[in-house]
Amino acid sequence: MDDRIERLQRRSAKNEGILSLAGGLPANELFPRQKLASAFLSVVSRPNCEALQYGWPEGSEGLRKWIADRLRGRGADVSPDDVIVTSGAQQALAIAVELIGIDGRVVATEEETYPGALDLFRDRGAKTASASRATNADAACIYVVAGASNPRGLPLSELRRAELLASGRPLLVDEAYAELRFDGYVAPPFLVDARDRTFHIGTFSKTLCPGLRVGWLVAPPELAADALRVKRDLDLQAGSMAQAVVEGYLALDDFDQRIVRARKTYASRAGRLVRALRRYMPEARWVEPEGAFAVFVETDLEGVDEAHALAIANAHGVSYDPGSMFRPGAALDPFGFRLCYSSRTGEEIEEAVQRLARALGEVRARKAA
Amino acid sequence: MDDRIERLQRRSAKNEGILSLAGGLPANELFPRQKLASAFLSVVSRPNCEALQYGWPEGSEGLRKWIADRLRGRGADVSPDDVIVTSGAQQALAIAVELIGIDGRVVATEEETYPGALDLFRDRGAKTASASRATNADAACIYVVAGASNPRGLPLSELRRAELLASGRPLLVDEAYAELRFDGYVAPPFLVDARDRTFHIGTFSKTLCPGLRVGWLVAPPELAADALRVKRDLDLQAGSMAQAVVEGYLALDDFDQRIVRARKTYASRAGRLVRALRRYMPEARWVEPEGAFAVFVETDLEGVDEAHALAIANAHGVSYDPGSMFRPGAALDPFGFRLCYSSRTGEEIEEAVQRLARALGEVRARKAA
Repeated sequence: MDDRIERLQRRSAKNEGILSLAGGLPANELFPRQKLASAFLSVVSRPNCEALQYGWPEGSEGLRKWIADRLRGRGADVSPDDVIVTSGAQQALAIAVELIGIDGRVVATEEETYPGALDLFRDRGAKTASASRATNADAACIYVVAGASNPRGLPLSELRRAELLASGRPLLVDEAYAELRFDGYVAPPFLVDARDRTFHIGTFSKTLCPGLRVGWLVAPPELAADALRVKRDLDLQAGSMAQAVVEGYLALDDFDQRIVRARKTYASRAGRLVRALRRYMPEARWVEPEGAFAVFVETDLEGVDEAHALAIANAHGVSYDPGSMFRPGAALDPFGFRLCYSSRTGEEIEEAVQRLARALGEVRARKAA
Repeated sequence: MDDRIERLQRRSAKNEGILSLAGGLPANELFPRQKLASAFLSVVSRPNCEALQYGWPEGSEGLRKWIADRLRGRGADVSPDDVIVTSGAQQALAIAVELIGIDGRVVATEEETYPGALDLFRDRGAKTASASRATNADAACIYVVAGASNPRGLPLSELRRAELLASGRPLLVDEAYAELRFDGYVAPPFLVDARDRTFHIGTFSKTLCPGLRVGWLVAPPELAADALRVKRDLDLQAGSMAQAVVEGYLALDDFDQRIVRARKTYASRAGRLVRALRRYMPEARWVEPEGAFAVFVETDLEGVDEAHALAIANAHGVSYDPGSMFRPGAALDPFGFRLCYSSRTGEEIEEAVQRLARALGEVRARKAA
């Protein structure tokens, strides 16, 4: 990422006058603080101190069972022993690319995708490219955010799913948002159709809270032992306390009901953003999201300096994630950005889009000048 | 590690009839459970939810300041911006080797050292070898557990320190046990003498608790930006909640007093182990530890199958970590093992050593047969 953009984002995060639509943060209002506190108190007082001690690299047995049960409920042939609890979904990705070996090779992704994955692939020496029949054939692996995409919040089409399965390539399937489709539909995991070459990646970051850093990886069976070795090399184990708190929380709450509430909140916020875009930025191009946290917006502008435009937006009191971050070729054109509605109230969204529309007007005027 | 040994260790961990001297666990009795619970309750109720949300890859500002202040107090020129909070010391090591590039090269270590580091170095394609003037000259880097070593609990000699500094090679300095010398002396960090090629690695795992997974890395200044990039690629950030709990805890307690108590507990347990070894295993060779968690014991036996011997020990109701795990060349001879006194009471230590002496008698008898 452009250093100037990083500096702007860090500065704007500290500025309470700026309404940020950046960052992909879940809604603070949805964090089950009481129940997490109860879970913590319960696990910290256990005489064996398992929440504070070292644990095994694969993670807690109870949590792996919960994850495996949930995947089995969706048709996948997965046992608790197939699951590695990771320090968030990002680590699951890092383990997967270590096992695949991507240095000097191509990693294929959607037209726009999760920047943390693109950064990882590039830093590990891969060339990132949009998936296509031609790219897929050569690719070291194909990365896809399944269920509801980042940054567009769209499900994978049946055609696309079939293409990925037909590619024969290793699939990195990131289900960070898979349970957060507004209509409640959760597609079968790729594990059902391609168990032997799917790296299934999940996380509690979007559905529970990111600050615990608890995710998971189900690797192809023949790489499972190597995956565990890499996990141990990277950080020994996911946090014992974080895992115990999640497990304790799951025993105290109805997770499915929680997801239902979360979908409702995010759907409502998505609706506010969509209406505000129609009203205040009618010229922008975007597709109505069907889940997840954000809308990816493109404009008719080309050749815009993204850092310059972001500085103008910040001056107007709004922030977002510039579009090139999400593009495998890091393309600047057409000028676009991701707007996250997830952590903002309806009123904030409405206000932020008005500020953004004014900022875009200024970007346009300066370009024309 | 030998798969048979891993299976035995996993099985014995579940067997309450086995007194384990394996694993390097801090004493459960020393975990400040009340204060950690208070810290958790305080941070989870803050309106900004920072303990539950995403944070920056470098970690929390308050914690980095605490770490930098402590290092500055020991003479190092380190600011909070130089510190990266990591998911434990193991991750700091993983970041360091990623930056150095060790594939196909030699990593030099002490004659015996931390197995998690040896595994990482080997899995990343390095050859591990005992440090010597000859080895050091070629080495990609030199790894040392400073202050009090693992597995021997011994400080680095002044001569050895001077040799390491004279080597001119990158130094991976693991201070996991540096504050846990029984006499309270904490040597100046290598950062004081070799800021430009020291990867300084620290952790709360031994002094507070390992289940939070909070460690830190101070990289050479010219690699600091790259270190942060690697950290972000690996898992985005250390746990927000874990960091907030540590920070909250540090505000509630006198950490230095805590360390004083920990040293006393571990010194007393070390004394019990040493006396038991003298009494029940007079033929064993070892050096009296001056800090940390363990004693490394060597016997006069050679050619012992470590898994076989461990199975015999388990049958006698005791467990330990086999010696080859700690040796850079994975040498089996002389037959030896690490005995951790850290998580056992004096009575348990006494009983465990008696069982071990009987087990060794059986190993010896079977060899002679």
